[in-house]
Amino acid sequence: MTQNNFADFSVDYIHSLTEAIEPNCRVVESVGEGVNEVVEGDTVIPTFLPDCGECVDCQSKKSNLCSKLPFKVSPWMARYETTRFTDLNGDPLYHFLFVSSFSEYTVVDIAHLTKIDSAIPPNRGCLLSCGVSTGVGAAWRSAGVEAGSSVAIFGLGSIGLAVAEGARLCGATRIIGVDVNPDKFEIGKKFGVTDFVNGADSGEKSVSQVINDMTGGGADYCFECVGRAPLVQEAYASCRKGWGKTIVLGVDKPGSQVTLPSHDILHSGKSLLGSLFGGLKPKSDIPILLKRYTDKVSVLENGIMNNELQLDEFVTHEVKFEDINKAFDLLIEGNCLRCVIWMDK
Amino acid sequence: MTQNNFADFSVDYIHSLTEAIEPNCRVVESVGEGVNEVVEGDTVIPTFLPDCGECVDCQSKKSNLCSKLPFKVSPWMARYETTRFTDLNGDPLYHFLFVSSFSEYTVVDIAHLTKIDSAIPPNRGCLLSCGVSTGVGAAWRSAGVEAGSSVAIFGLGSIGLAVAEGARLCGATRIIGVDVNPDKFEIGKKFGVTDFVNGADSGEKSVSQVINDMTGGGADYCFECVGRAPLVQEAYASCRKGWGKTIVLGVDKPGSQVTLPSHDILHSGKSLLGSLFGGLKPKSDIPILLKRYTDKVSVLENGIMNNELQLDEFVTHEVKFEDINKAFDLLIEGNCLRCVIWMDK
Repeated sequence: MTQNNFADFSVDYIHSLTEAIEPNCRVVESVGEGVNEVVEGDTVIPTFLPDCGECVDCQSKKSNLCSKLPFKVSPWMARYETTRFTDLNGDPLYHFLFVSSFSEYTVVDIAHLTKIDSAIPPNRGCLLSCGVSTGVGAAWRSAGVEAGSSVAIFGLGSIGLAVAEGARLCGATRIIGVDVNPDKFEIGKKFGVTDFVNGADSGEKSVSQVINDMTGGGADYCFECVGRAPLVQEAYASCRKGWGKTIVLGVDKPGSQVTLPSHDILHSGKSLLGSLFGGLKPKSDIPILLKRYTDKVSVLENGIMNNELQLDEFVTHEVKFEDINKAFDLLIEGNCLRCVIWMDK
Repeated sequence: MTQNNFADFSVDYIHSLTEAIEPNCRVVESVGEGVNEVVEGDTVIPTFLPDCGECVDCQSKKSNLCSKLPFKVSPWMARYETTRFTDLNGDPLYHFLFVSSFSEYTVVDIAHLTKIDSAIPPNRGCLLSCGVSTGVGAAWRSAGVEAGSSVAIFGLGSIGLAVAEGARLCGATRIIGVDVNPDKFEIGKKFGVTDFVNGADSGEKSVSQVINDMTGGGADYCFECVGRAPLVQEAYASCRKGWGKTIVLGVDKPGSQVTLPSHDILHSGKSLLGSLFGGLKPKSDIPILLKRYTDKVSVLENGIMNNELQLDEFVTHEVKFEDINKAFDLLIEGNCLRCVIWMDK
């Protein structure tokens, strides 16, 4: 992908497309100088979010936003601000979100790689490189969903469904999905969605009024998974007074603003927070989640996640690399959850 | 105060005025049917925020917003929606914020009364009926300020100074005060303020840029204590990426809105929350704070507050009831922190 391509699209849009197409489970081919964390032949997951392990953020339990190599949209290698690729004419090929994974070989900074058990099937491990991990993490790490709690999810794409899966694992007993496509309810049930609100047809009431009525005062946790400021406001209005949390995962258009009434902020006891990569620290949390996939009886550190993490159910399509455009078509048509691209088949 | 008076003023404005004038430490004169919590002669503090002790919110550690008798601006007794006062002509006199404390005798629902040790001087106990408790509580309960952390406080009125006092007690090592009046720095030092930023003269940089520079990336906790939406936005921008919390205490004008960039919410890992009565549960938390005033060596339940709570320093003026208008003048002129009104002197 050349730098010109960056100007053609909203980078966030490209990112959300690439998120849904998962080639991100790799085998280490060679290792650069000073890298001791992985060796040739290791299985790794590249992530757009770095985890240097050294800075105050990476060493803090409260942050997953590495401050040594802060995440930004950039065409360079994270640490050196150079590119490692050229085309046949010797002209530079730029990096994409530090991962550049639509290629058979790529160069990734060690801060952006998480080593995983090589027994994990690559077409499952790849799901944790962004989309599914982001949703599950948002429920588990960012929100800290508690057993017995109620959850409302705005947008039942793969990210929203992954939030449902995370909330289910954390023991939420009521998981309300909100979408304009009622078919999403049947799909959502696989991931723990217990109730559905049609955002395009909620009768005389607003969606937040419906959710307030359903839950007797609002959901304990509300997740915005679309990327639209009015939905963030509706999610905030759907939250339980006293302790409700609204977690924003959706990537909105550049320049958009979220507006909340001052009175509601002061008088509601609610909180609003954003969640990048679900609040997960890639190197420590991805292996925990994969263990939940392979080892169905273990209990996570918060003592709550004692169910199996479902990954198989997210993969609705698999294509060869040469059919990557078909993967994009499926995605744009809304006909897939995750489409895995195989580089070697 | 008659109901007509409610229409003449912004009720929030009246409330913020009455907050700064503290007559709220009382002796029980008689007890209504079914009330067992206090007896005649007990010393009590009335609070605008109820604490029924029975509802899911009062029984939860996560909320201080009673849902049985939800706080609202109302001219009635909380539980019965009636008034208990009449004037000499037999016309109703209405209640104010369930407390109606500018009178020698008043009627208060038991949910709005906290029994305290009668050894507490009334001109100190009264400070915890709203203003000082709100500020200290916002640092302690709403924010959960940690030892060694940095704090920025927008507005060094009594509420902001009480936030500083709470942050100091929680062990914050850097407490930055922001105000347009530089004289507030000297006053603030008494309550733990270590640094000052003049909001009216921060040079070529915005206040948030100054605070970001001072703290190497933002304060861990930012408190808005004025009630102006642009300051909430500036406080949010002054918070540390990754874990910063912005706590809103200020009462803004009705209808005002807080606007935040969607990108910042998603990418910053910051959170925004409101704090009514500092997140305190009146009946359980006011006695804890008073114990910090009387007993200088005890340690609070979070193990951090091992310094003395300063109350004396907040009382700059004391007047007789007949001089209540002088108290209002002092307040409007900005020449007092707290002015205590004595009913019986």
